[in-house]
Amino acid sequence: MPIATRAFAATAADAPLSPYSFDRRDPGSNDVAIEIKYCGVCHSDLHVAKNDLGGTRYPIVPGHEIAGVVTAVGPDVSRFKVGDRVGVGCMVDSCRTCAACAAGEEQYCEPGMTQTYGSADPKGGEVGQTITQGGYADRITVDQDFVLRIPDALPLDAAAPLLCAGITTYSPLRHWKVGPGSKVAVIGLGGLGHMAVKLAAAMGAEVTVLSTSDRKKGDAERMGAKHFLINSDKAAMKAAAEKFDLIINTVSATHEIASHINLLARDGTMVMLGLTTEGLPVYAMPLLWRRRSVAGSLIGGIRETQEMLDFCAEHGIACDIETIAPDQINEAYARMERSDVRYRFVIDMARMPQAA
Amino acid sequence: MPIATRAFAATAADAPLSPYSFDRRDPGSNDVAIEIKYCGVCHSDLHVAKNDLGGTRYPIVPGHEIAGVVTAVGPDVSRFKVGDRVGVGCMVDSCRTCAACAAGEEQYCEPGMTQTYGSADPKGGEVGQTITQGGYADRITVDQDFVLRIPDALPLDAAAPLLCAGITTYSPLRHWKVGPGSKVAVIGLGGLGHMAVKLAAAMGAEVTVLSTSDRKKGDAERMGAKHFLINSDKAAMKAAAEKFDLIINTVSATHEIASHINLLARDGTMVMLGLTTEGLPVYAMPLLWRRRSVAGSLIGGIRETQEMLDFCAEHGIACDIETIAPDQINEAYARMERSDVRYRFVIDMARMPQAA
Repeated sequence: MPIATRAFAATAADAPLSPYSFDRRDPGSNDVAIEIKYCGVCHSDLHVAKNDLGGTRYPIVPGHEIAGVVTAVGPDVSRFKVGDRVGVGCMVDSCRTCAACAAGEEQYCEPGMTQTYGSADPKGGEVGQTITQGGYADRITVDQDFVLRIPDALPLDAAAPLLCAGITTYSPLRHWKVGPGSKVAVIGLGGLGHMAVKLAAAMGAEVTVLSTSDRKKGDAERMGAKHFLINSDKAAMKAAAEKFDLIINTVSATHEIASHINLLARDGTMVMLGLTTEGLPVYAMPLLWRRRSVAGSLIGGIRETQEMLDFCAEHGIACDIETIAPDQINEAYARMERSDVRYRFVIDMARMPQAA
Repeated sequence: MPIATRAFAATAADAPLSPYSFDRRDPGSNDVAIEIKYCGVCHSDLHVAKNDLGGTRYPIVPGHEIAGVVTAVGPDVSRFKVGDRVGVGCMVDSCRTCAACAAGEEQYCEPGMTQTYGSADPKGGEVGQTITQGGYADRITVDQDFVLRIPDALPLDAAAPLLCAGITTYSPLRHWKVGPGSKVAVIGLGGLGHMAVKLAAAMGAEVTVLSTSDRKKGDAERMGAKHFLINSDKAAMKAAAEKFDLIINTVSATHEIASHINLLARDGTMVMLGLTTEGLPVYAMPLLWRRRSVAGSLIGGIRETQEMLDFCAEHGIACDIETIAPDQINEAYARMERSDVRYRFVIDMARMPQAA
């Protein structure tokens, strides 16, 4: 029997999100039905709701930082049972056969992963859904292979954003082998940046935050940063030249990256995590001169996401959040656009308006 | 006693190179005196002669692809003797104590390597030289630690350009672990590009050349390329999407790189080797989508340069060259600027004009 679902959806690029009701599919043999308790609000949600990247199909329910509790499981589900605390991130399926999927990196699935919202939904037919709908909703049904276990040590609300902001920063820190002795810089102390600081510090790195002002210096230090640099301070930037093995660049607006490349040590890498759409000028000489790299990284695989959640539980790490009611989402978007959030909005689904 | 040296030098950015006489230092205790037989002509020589990068001090004798024979050695020289066939590349000294030097990567020396021409010359005082002068000359004196052994199997003329074009392409192929099964693309079939093709093929990679026309298709195949792509052919470029583990980008003019990024497989890297001076727009999305990188690489260390020469001898690899007399250098520069060279000019010092 379809599962009646209450949600908030964008209905057009210039319309505020508004209440939206639809049906989720009844769990198939391998599916887990979840009551969503909390959903984090990611900058990508805003990009898609406003069609900043093009291609948005409306109505769309954003949200891919989902934390909740299992309410039912299909007959072939072995890994979860009713009552389990679970999470869902940016993907709900992938081809499962390509080289990337075989390597446990489903986020790079060659034919393309099924994103939690906005992708063609091959399993939505029975309930009339042609595209996947995300987590600004009280219910979701997901294949068990794309469901994560949230350790008991993590509160559900502060764990929700780990499913995107956490894994998006954890994965490049692991891929570029950050550990004791690593020098890591984080550009931008927002939703992603604050997680990068906490995770890198927990891995043993010496962490520096680069920001446009010292407004967040105290927060950065509390999160584990040893140093704080204002990137308009030319003398300080010069003194930091060639210092960092890895720069985690979380800025999601078009910005100047060339002056930051010189902060990289020999063989250092700047990893871009933000969904900027314009070309960012990169100069060959500073790359050649120290064999530096500019790279990108996209979330992380399912196995690595579970590893990240377990790491966070072990190290007592969660997101710094501000909880909102579903009907405060438009105000939250407006505040995110002026960077007024410390450090992630999380929607509390218990405050979902009742159907009229 | 100072060593009288005949050379060709640039005396101003807009003047043709002309005959120039000066003295090289008598070998110090650790020095090797070399009679230069051949010197390759690198695109960087032209940039420096014409002051394209700024900072050129005149008169300047370019040339850092030097092959010759030892004529004298200092008392502490153990590794070379008179008559040995030797080479000198882009560096003649470095600090020898920083982390890069300790790792055998003197090209990334933190205080800065001493380049073969145009660097401050700490040892030139006794002969009145304040900056280093390069290989468009019949003599040079170099510290033995920066002298390479040219294996007997390699002809001196075709070996000369290995000292820059060879190591500049060999080093990134090794650093990014090219071997059997690797798929490597080379953008631009010039002095660097043709060496990249030969070396990558010898390492066991499947090599594709990308060029603006099919003029050099036959050459590419002869050098070991399996595939040839014209980069304005949109259908062919689309079919090649996500194919390459490594793209060696040898283009030294400002050019469009964004459309080539999509040719990289997951975790693939484009390595820039050319000294472009303007910013090249890089887009975040294609980097994120497959965890791709854009990197730079600069020549190689001394140990690795010797390894490259030995590899070339073992695999029968040398440069494709066109030999010129020293007084043909200005014509050679003009031809290089219109890409009319297959694939490296080499100056034959036996044809140096006699002093009047």
